[in-house]
Amino acid sequence: MFSEISVPSRTIMTPGPVEAHPVALRAMSASILGQFDPAFLQIMDEVKEMIKIPFGTKNKQAFAVDGTSRSGLEAALIALIEPGDKVLIPVYGRFAYLLGEICERAQAEIHYLEKEWDAPFEQETVIEEIKKFQPKIVAMVHGETANGQMQAMKKIGQHCQANDIFFVVDMVATYGGVPLEVDAWGVDIAIAGTQKCVSVPSGLSLITYNDRVEKVLTSRYQKELGLSKDIRNANHISSNYLDLSQLQRYWSEERINHHTEATSMIYGLHEGLRMMIKEGMDNVYARHAQNDQAIVAGIKAMGLGFYGDLSTKMPTVTPIMIPDGIDGEQVRALMLDEFGVEIASSFGALQGKVWRIGNMGYSSRKSNVLHVLSALEGALNYYGAQINKGEAVKAALNIYKK
Amino acid sequence: MFSEISVPSRTIMTPGPVEAHPVALRAMSASILGQFDPAFLQIMDEVKEMIKIPFGTKNKQAFAVDGTSRSGLEAALIALIEPGDKVLIPVYGRFAYLLGEICERAQAEIHYLEKEWDAPFEQETVIEEIKKFQPKIVAMVHGETANGQMQAMKKIGQHCQANDIFFVVDMVATYGGVPLEVDAWGVDIAIAGTQKCVSVPSGLSLITYNDRVEKVLTSRYQKELGLSKDIRNANHISSNYLDLSQLQRYWSEERINHHTEATSMIYGLHEGLRMMIKEGMDNVYARHAQNDQAIVAGIKAMGLGFYGDLSTKMPTVTPIMIPDGIDGEQVRALMLDEFGVEIASSFGALQGKVWRIGNMGYSSRKSNVLHVLSALEGALNYYGAQINKGEAVKAALNIYKK
Repeated sequence: MFSEISVPSRTIMTPGPVEAHPVALRAMSASILGQFDPAFLQIMDEVKEMIKIPFGTKNKQAFAVDGTSRSGLEAALIALIEPGDKVLIPVYGRFAYLLGEICERAQAEIHYLEKEWDAPFEQETVIEEIKKFQPKIVAMVHGETANGQMQAMKKIGQHCQANDIFFVVDMVATYGGVPLEVDAWGVDIAIAGTQKCVSVPSGLSLITYNDRVEKVLTSRYQKELGLSKDIRNANHISSNYLDLSQLQRYWSEERINHHTEATSMIYGLHEGLRMMIKEGMDNVYARHAQNDQAIVAGIKAMGLGFYGDLSTKMPTVTPIMIPDGIDGEQVRALMLDEFGVEIASSFGALQGKVWRIGNMGYSSRKSNVLHVLSALEGALNYYGAQINKGEAVKAALNIYKK
Repeated sequence: MFSEISVPSRTIMTPGPVEAHPVALRAMSASILGQFDPAFLQIMDEVKEMIKIPFGTKNKQAFAVDGTSRSGLEAALIALIEPGDKVLIPVYGRFAYLLGEICERAQAEIHYLEKEWDAPFEQETVIEEIKKFQPKIVAMVHGETANGQMQAMKKIGQHCQANDIFFVVDMVATYGGVPLEVDAWGVDIAIAGTQKCVSVPSGLSLITYNDRVEKVLTSRYQKELGLSKDIRNANHISSNYLDLSQLQRYWSEERINHHTEATSMIYGLHEGLRMMIKEGMDNVYARHAQNDQAIVAGIKAMGLGFYGDLSTKMPTVTPIMIPDGIDGEQVRALMLDEFGVEIASSFGALQGKVWRIGNMGYSSRKSNVLHVLSALEGALNYYGAQINKGEAVKAALNIYKK
């Protein structure tokens, strides 16, 4: 009636989920440990330390939230927001609206600063708007997966720090692929996920925050009723599951019993982080940068155009204009079915107009880059697109041979 | 600096997380598929159907929430609760207070019906309280992990159905270990997890609900702002991440882009469910019942006492009184460190007084039962407890040889 799962082998060149590192996958098939087993607690403690490294932070607090990336985004925002709080959301892509959606449900007063999606903001523009709107929180996306643009944020963050404004940044699409400096950029809470450059399956969100945020959490702490009838707090966080004030105590020496940790995902996360750190973060970033250059060179040589400003494009995603007269979904289907290669479409106004090639984590490999360029050329050629034949792979190889 | 994880082999006889089925663990190391890859969608569709079988339901809706069990509990309750709604919570153990904690944060008006934890309610008592308090929702725990008692609920559920009251039931500790009849018992939403009798690592919650609940969800549906600016709803659910009205559409043919599904956990869930269904649910329940009898016979033969009424004890947990003069944590530590066997302590008033032996899923095996009884006897004997020596294992074997 139901058969064992059959998982075809895929070359995944989307902006996530990407191919998991084989060492992380192997770790996930290790047997279960109890959640308070000393052997498991040691793994959790190491994970806490390793999470901080790609974030570029010396924060005391860093841990995983048991949910996909957006669970961490929601946990971060509801930790700070009380009904009526003013939140400024600068929008240069789709995922800024996810931040808005979460803030709206948390009953914040939201102000969107919107622009075209083809480039990020000038930092000064955002700072001007902060001065006008005077928010309690600025929530931004560091790298917009949907349109491939990346925001410089050091000046914005420093302005927030100097003016006692909280700066919450979604780093899901850049963590582990681009150098991040949470501390130097004045970021109060940063959030990432496992399914992109960490090369671990989707299912955990990574989070770090500073003392300023921890102070808020301490002031809002309410211990769960099943554990104590005494630690009540009229100003508690709206969710129990995504309550960072409890999660922090679950991941600390206090080890309150909040939930049953996702054992195998934590195994995988440990190994995914470890493999990055072992490679050396500078080497990891250099690999992503080189593979990005090869993808861009290949697409250019094929004669295709790009969406958005290449000078502010993040190295982990390349948005490509679908040529006139070509059905983007037909090309994607042929690539998946015949070549076993997956690339992504896009969202909102870009849907049907833009493909996205991801370049993330374990998927960011020379052989994958050459494979995706070959498959895209093959599919376009099959459907009669006007492209320069035989140039893409050569251009990419020239980057590698430099 | 950081080394590969080292996972000691454990015999886990706690009430969760328990040992994962080797077939599920193996599946989790399969490579990643894109979340909308047809091969992955087929796996999701099969999971939806399989989830229904242990719940005993023909509901249209059944799927996984990407979080530990309590994420599903919260998703279920906030789907129904609007601020000020009356919720009745009958309490005969610790996890009823978790339901209360979630309802409190959802701004419900909560009424607790409390009793001693040594037995569940007479159904008539709950029905009387429903008549008095007239709640919109009754939220209950089917099996209380902390004290091992199990609630009969058919009459309560039928009363709720007849009076247009929503009946929400936490089946985390019984799903897959005890026959459940969500439809016949009049349960509107039932919630379970992966880390107990499904024999899959922690990290997903399983949920099913009927048309009455789906109607509420349809009336509260708000599509995420990043996907559509049109589908707004003043009465939307308070969380974006745990919004069943969106999750349902993610798991349906509509396939709205809500989150990136936890690929590998879904692989594991598929296989955990499949192995149960392949064994046959009746055989699964008979196995749990027999191993429970063996545990109870062994503990009795050793001369130890039980907490609570044995006639209403659930077969998946056995609470044992810690003998006078014995340090329960010292015994647990010796069992873990020297025998590699884990049993659990308890919560609240039972902490330090009660151990709990779990009997769940892949851990519910004859060899595990004999091992835990031997280890407990060995540890108690080592610490000088007055017990009947050599009787426990013999009593258990007599159950199996019957």
